[in-house]
Amino acid sequence: MTLNRIVNNPDLVVEDMLRGVLAAHPGLSAHPDNPRVLRHRSAGTPGRVGIVTGGGSGHEPAFLGYVGQGLVDAVAVGEVFSSPTAKSFMDAFQLAHGGQGIACLYGNYAGDNMNVKMAIKLAERADIQVRTVVANDDAASAPPDQPGKRRGVAGEILMWKAGGAVAAQGGTLDEVIQAAQKAIDNTRSIGIGLSACTIPAVGKANFTIKHGEMEVGIGHHGEPGVSVQAVVPARDMARLMLDKLLPDLPFARGDKVAVLLSGLGATPLMEQYILYADVADVLREAGLQVAHSFVGNLFTSLEMMGVTLTLMRLDAQLDQCLAAPCDSIGLRQGGQP
Amino acid sequence: MTLNRIVNNPDLVVEDMLRGVLAAHPGLSAHPDNPRVLRHRSAGTPGRVGIVTGGGSGHEPAFLGYVGQGLVDAVAVGEVFSSPTAKSFMDAFQLAHGGQGIACLYGNYAGDNMNVKMAIKLAERADIQVRTVVANDDAASAPPDQPGKRRGVAGEILMWKAGGAVAAQGGTLDEVIQAAQKAIDNTRSIGIGLSACTIPAVGKANFTIKHGEMEVGIGHHGEPGVSVQAVVPARDMARLMLDKLLPDLPFARGDKVAVLLSGLGATPLMEQYILYADVADVLREAGLQVAHSFVGNLFTSLEMMGVTLTLMRLDAQLDQCLAAPCDSIGLRQGGQP
Repeated sequence: MTLNRIVNNPDLVVEDMLRGVLAAHPGLSAHPDNPRVLRHRSAGTPGRVGIVTGGGSGHEPAFLGYVGQGLVDAVAVGEVFSSPTAKSFMDAFQLAHGGQGIACLYGNYAGDNMNVKMAIKLAERADIQVRTVVANDDAASAPPDQPGKRRGVAGEILMWKAGGAVAAQGGTLDEVIQAAQKAIDNTRSIGIGLSACTIPAVGKANFTIKHGEMEVGIGHHGEPGVSVQAVVPARDMARLMLDKLLPDLPFARGDKVAVLLSGLGATPLMEQYILYADVADVLREAGLQVAHSFVGNLFTSLEMMGVTLTLMRLDAQLDQCLAAPCDSIGLRQGGQP
Repeated sequence: MTLNRIVNNPDLVVEDMLRGVLAAHPGLSAHPDNPRVLRHRSAGTPGRVGIVTGGGSGHEPAFLGYVGQGLVDAVAVGEVFSSPTAKSFMDAFQLAHGGQGIACLYGNYAGDNMNVKMAIKLAERADIQVRTVVANDDAASAPPDQPGKRRGVAGEILMWKAGGAVAAQGGTLDEVIQAAQKAIDNTRSIGIGLSACTIPAVGKANFTIKHGEMEVGIGHHGEPGVSVQAVVPARDMARLMLDKLLPDLPFARGDKVAVLLSGLGATPLMEQYILYADVADVLREAGLQVAHSFVGNLFTSLEMMGVTLTLMRLDAQLDQCLAAPCDSIGLRQGGQP
């Protein structure tokens, strides 16, 4: 077995994890015929648009941890760092369907794109209308003029939050899709990796980061970043990341924003807050007003050290969507009065 | 600087972290004259008992992350892995004081005991009544007949939850202390360490765990456990931990319990849920009924790999306390209807 890990069979980590998730959270249940699909007890509420997502495992609490009230209704769960099957996406559509169609909000990866596309064909035969928003918030993954090549990372959480809030308020499929698309269009992310991670079934890292170095722009599966350089102090990391994010949208003085800073797995919360302080300084200098901040291990890459920084420009609707109540493993908040 | 960490000055990690916590969470603020004391906006509500805790940094979200509604009113923040000062505890008492006295609910460590004792003397002069409950839930830290030698670990969260719930419901100081004491008396914890952690200002681990080995019963600062052995599968870890916990209280068939499984910092949430599944199996075999479960990085030790498992026996009051609403960085839940 893989050393220094808490696993039984490295080939069955997803099955074993799902068993634990279901045991710990009575509000979640598996599809009766497909253990790789989880639903919230409110999934399929008649008259409400259903929100579905899916993705590879190893990013917990993403994706399954965002199934819950005001967020995602059903999730398709893939192997570690690989897409769920088309059948799992289709099974998730069926669980989430309340007669008003499905918003499938997922990240831009080849496997997910292919499987969602096939699932939509299956859904057409079952007379379930599915529309998609494909998250592409990772600003380091392709130039600004090639948004279709950009990957989705932690900005997906804000996309789910926006779409989920509009669905909970009784929005139509058009309205949910419009809000989720607007959310991701106004969101940019960038990661910094300080150490690699190891897929349990593989047993060794599929990429390396030398001790003392960091990879700026690293992807959530260790995809190469834009530069490898010596580790710098937190305040310089904040500046490096925001120098990339701010001009990319671009964010402008006076913008109201949400900030999401996620640890990638092994970075202590202490260090995440240290970085957040420096991020807040740079945002203040840039004349941005932070209306919502989220800090923690919200979208991870197994035990990678490092962080993702996500910035979203808010209008009144997105602001209100982020403030709406929700309840899931990854994100819980009460409503604003 | 320490490599592969997100810090500015390793000697100022606590200051820098607090700056980030305050920037991210507008509901929290620092004592006007003591940056090492944080309060929630509802601290000092007239007529309500105040809940105070404190401890070393590096365990985030403990301790400061449990300041919030239905939990802790004010916290004294120490250096990494070392006690806050007596003055900080006293300053926290003053912020939390609403005229009905203070319940200081903290963990059994020599430095904390000494500083709380001195702070209580200062409080007496200021006519603030302070009573304490000292958490000693770590079943691996001393034999059952020496409860005074046992350390407090993640069971403290359940102690704060119980005391905080009774205070929020308008309980007297006697009632809050009684509930918090009952909570910890019915709680047992045990840790397993899979890797060491490094205090940023020290720059190297002050203990080691060989790759391929695990330390059963390890403390939250790397204190020696009860055995060092080869890493075993998750299901055997679950059994090892529960073989120690179940007879210690003892828990008995038919008991209703709460389970809290915390990662120690670098353990992926995936692995925490894998272990939770096996823990749930053993509890079912033992005839225990799990009424509340908490899984996540709830009480950590910087970037240590490993977990703490905490088990609490519930009566009707403790069950209701754990179900009560609360809102903090570390724990948020709505009320049960």
